[in-house]
Amino acid sequence: MADLDQVLSYVDRERQRFVADLVTWCRIPSISSSEQHRGEVRRSAEHLRERLMALGCTTSAILETKLHPAVYAEWMVDPSKPTLLIYGHHDVQPIDPLPEWHSPPFEPEEREGRLWGRGTVDDKGQVLIHVNAIEAFLRGGGALPINIKMIVEGEEEIGSAHLDDLMQEHRDRLSADFVVVSDTAMFGRGIPSLCVGLRGIAYFDITVRALTMDAHSGSFGGGVQNPANALARLIAGLHDENGAITIAGFYDRVRTLTEGERKEIAALPFDEKAWLASVGATAVAGEKGYSTLERVWTRPTLDINGLSSGFQGKGPKTVLPAFASAKLSCRLVPDQDPREIAKLVEAHFQKHAPAGCSVEVDYLHGGHPYLAPTDHPVYEIAKRAFTRAFGQPTVFIREGGSIPFVRTIADRTGKPCLLMGFGQPDENAHAPNEWLDLENYHLGIKSAVYLYDELSRTK
Amino acid sequence: MADLDQVLSYVDRERQRFVADLVTWCRIPSISSSEQHRGEVRRSAEHLRERLMALGCTTSAILETKLHPAVYAEWMVDPSKPTLLIYGHHDVQPIDPLPEWHSPPFEPEEREGRLWGRGTVDDKGQVLIHVNAIEAFLRGGGALPINIKMIVEGEEEIGSAHLDDLMQEHRDRLSADFVVVSDTAMFGRGIPSLCVGLRGIAYFDITVRALTMDAHSGSFGGGVQNPANALARLIAGLHDENGAITIAGFYDRVRTLTEGERKEIAALPFDEKAWLASVGATAVAGEKGYSTLERVWTRPTLDINGLSSGFQGKGPKTVLPAFASAKLSCRLVPDQDPREIAKLVEAHFQKHAPAGCSVEVDYLHGGHPYLAPTDHPVYEIAKRAFTRAFGQPTVFIREGGSIPFVRTIADRTGKPCLLMGFGQPDENAHAPNEWLDLENYHLGIKSAVYLYDELSRTK
Repeated sequence: MADLDQVLSYVDRERQRFVADLVTWCRIPSISSSEQHRGEVRRSAEHLRERLMALGCTTSAILETKLHPAVYAEWMVDPSKPTLLIYGHHDVQPIDPLPEWHSPPFEPEEREGRLWGRGTVDDKGQVLIHVNAIEAFLRGGGALPINIKMIVEGEEEIGSAHLDDLMQEHRDRLSADFVVVSDTAMFGRGIPSLCVGLRGIAYFDITVRALTMDAHSGSFGGGVQNPANALARLIAGLHDENGAITIAGFYDRVRTLTEGERKEIAALPFDEKAWLASVGATAVAGEKGYSTLERVWTRPTLDINGLSSGFQGKGPKTVLPAFASAKLSCRLVPDQDPREIAKLVEAHFQKHAPAGCSVEVDYLHGGHPYLAPTDHPVYEIAKRAFTRAFGQPTVFIREGGSIPFVRTIADRTGKPCLLMGFGQPDENAHAPNEWLDLENYHLGIKSAVYLYDELSRTK
Repeated sequence: MADLDQVLSYVDRERQRFVADLVTWCRIPSISSSEQHRGEVRRSAEHLRERLMALGCTTSAILETKLHPAVYAEWMVDPSKPTLLIYGHHDVQPIDPLPEWHSPPFEPEEREGRLWGRGTVDDKGQVLIHVNAIEAFLRGGGALPINIKMIVEGEEEIGSAHLDDLMQEHRDRLSADFVVVSDTAMFGRGIPSLCVGLRGIAYFDITVRALTMDAHSGSFGGGVQNPANALARLIAGLHDENGAITIAGFYDRVRTLTEGERKEIAALPFDEKAWLASVGATAVAGEKGYSTLERVWTRPTLDINGLSSGFQGKGPKTVLPAFASAKLSCRLVPDQDPREIAKLVEAHFQKHAPAGCSVEVDYLHGGHPYLAPTDHPVYEIAKRAFTRAFGQPTVFIREGGSIPFVRTIADRTGKPCLLMGFGQPDENAHAPNEWLDLENYHLGIKSAVYLYDELSRTK
């Protein structure tokens, strides 16, 4: 059994090198949504696999999918010991708009205790938290206290399209006693947090067509449908005056919050002003009858993520656009089903498409919402581990974002997913100037050390 | 006094040579919007001036502006006779996309009774209609029956930026009893037409801002304003359920159509199906209570010309956009005033901007609508002249587009602008494969001959 103090002092000793390792990995622009970055995603997978092999894993593999590869490794130290499966991802979000970055997205830069760059916190840094904890046990303490399996996929930012296939194909390999996912954020700086709820998602491309070519707005304006105006009307009609979504059947499966859940959320030290300021918002908005945290964590949404139509250059151009498009996504909550929502969205648009316009609804991807079984003993174990690392009580939180794979993993392994995340709420994970708090990175590694230690005593 | 039969038979005799002269002029690529074609625009002006000097004009000049020169010429035959001012332009539209042209844009080619090439109908052919009519009087009949002044500008396709300055500077020179503009289209083949109404325009950039950066739609969706959804609601709110514009005061100055005007429009042989098919539209749309031609010619509109927000690439990206923009323009009708409309639009957006969003309304440019004083005797005179040339009744039509210089000329000369155009509705004036109907060219010259003849009897 490793001496925990030695493991922890190894973590302290290697603190700077762990950052340097992260910088090296983040230099690989593994943007999974970009066709031209396909080779970089593979390079990122290979880079990670080499790192894991250097740590003497007992098995490792590049797991191929139809698109981007995942990385798999395991350290099977003793069949009598509990086995932990760790999930992470090595692909990253796109970087546009590039001009808004203060330093190049793929040349991570350390400033003010933060590491700035694409992938630093989402999710390469969080993957390395575990890799570093494993290293600390192996090199600092001499041995791992539990068996560890790790799967790091390359398609999380495009909806984990092939994760389910992967987990089906490798289901024997992926069996474990506990499952941990590090891809979320803490409630705030210094507050260790376990995320017990995630929203799901359903994402669409909507295209409204009225003409086969851009037409002269003088010669045709007022006589034919303008698809941009029509799209705006369709979008506007998706919410009522209370901010509720008008799509028939949309709320049918939404679970009502219990009084207990509402109290737990209300008890959190939520700094609404700081939260708004983090994205430069001046007022809260949304569905009436719910607090802001309730809306973001426990209520479904429908947001436009992009609009595109007609002339977008400088100055005037007097065209009636041939078509208008929107990126539209719904965040879903238990027990909404993305495929069912997709059907409702499609039906809504077809029903409300005005004469002279055709509407195309392209369902791009979906992910199920997730609510953890917090009565499972692993939640108390994890709380203890994090509290030891941070010296602060651990809180249960939820996350408004979607991590579709969590549901996939929970379903495929039959185990609850322990979401231990070390990001910060304002870390710009999907925006320019993504950053990782380096103190959290360090305490995250220690949390992982404590967690593996705690888990080793469950068998 | 010239013998009209001799003048007309001169037109018949020189028919082919008149086409050849047009081909020569059209070979000069006088694209006014292209910096690199600046010298060509000047060459085009000089070419025209030489042609006019060869016709023995009493005065001629290249009129300089800050950019492209105009050409001026006059034939003052007798101060006791009426004076006609003719407006045209010698600059042309750009030619892209070049691959779509069936023959080179600046090597005009005759096929199926049409002359294909940039500038053939817009507007060099229409300028030469008058030049040829003048020649026919001078060489076929021996003398002009009226005084003629001609101004042919080089900046029409870039908004006649310096026409007002020119007309101010040369206001004494440009005084006339009648003003004719040949730069519009006929209602259809074989239907001589006088355009008596043009819509004005007011063009805006609208930007709705809610965040200072794109934010994660999971972490913030449902909690803050989404500017793309807000923009859609604002746009949707601009029309009521009958397609009428909801901006307070918008219709205050709109003239109600008289029963006579409605009957005149209804009597036109409008082929709605062919009109829709020309842009691939499947249904008419717009304000209730008006026919399609009434809507396009006589009712104001509010159309979105472009939309831009958030993520516009392929696939999904889960952002709340920081801002959303629209290009928005109103076509205006008598007696709406673009500056007044700009104020109403601005006030509307500021009034309806939701909490948490700021709205910026940028008024890019405007142009006044025009309605000809059709009770002025020149309209009956012109009708008679065209009917004599075409052997068909002449109709009054309007144009949904805007020709800002018409109002400039009308205001500066204090005379009604007679819009005698010989284009066709589908002549591709601003698109690849522009063409001029050569029968119309020929009958246009005869129409000008008859018009000058008729005008000579007004004093």
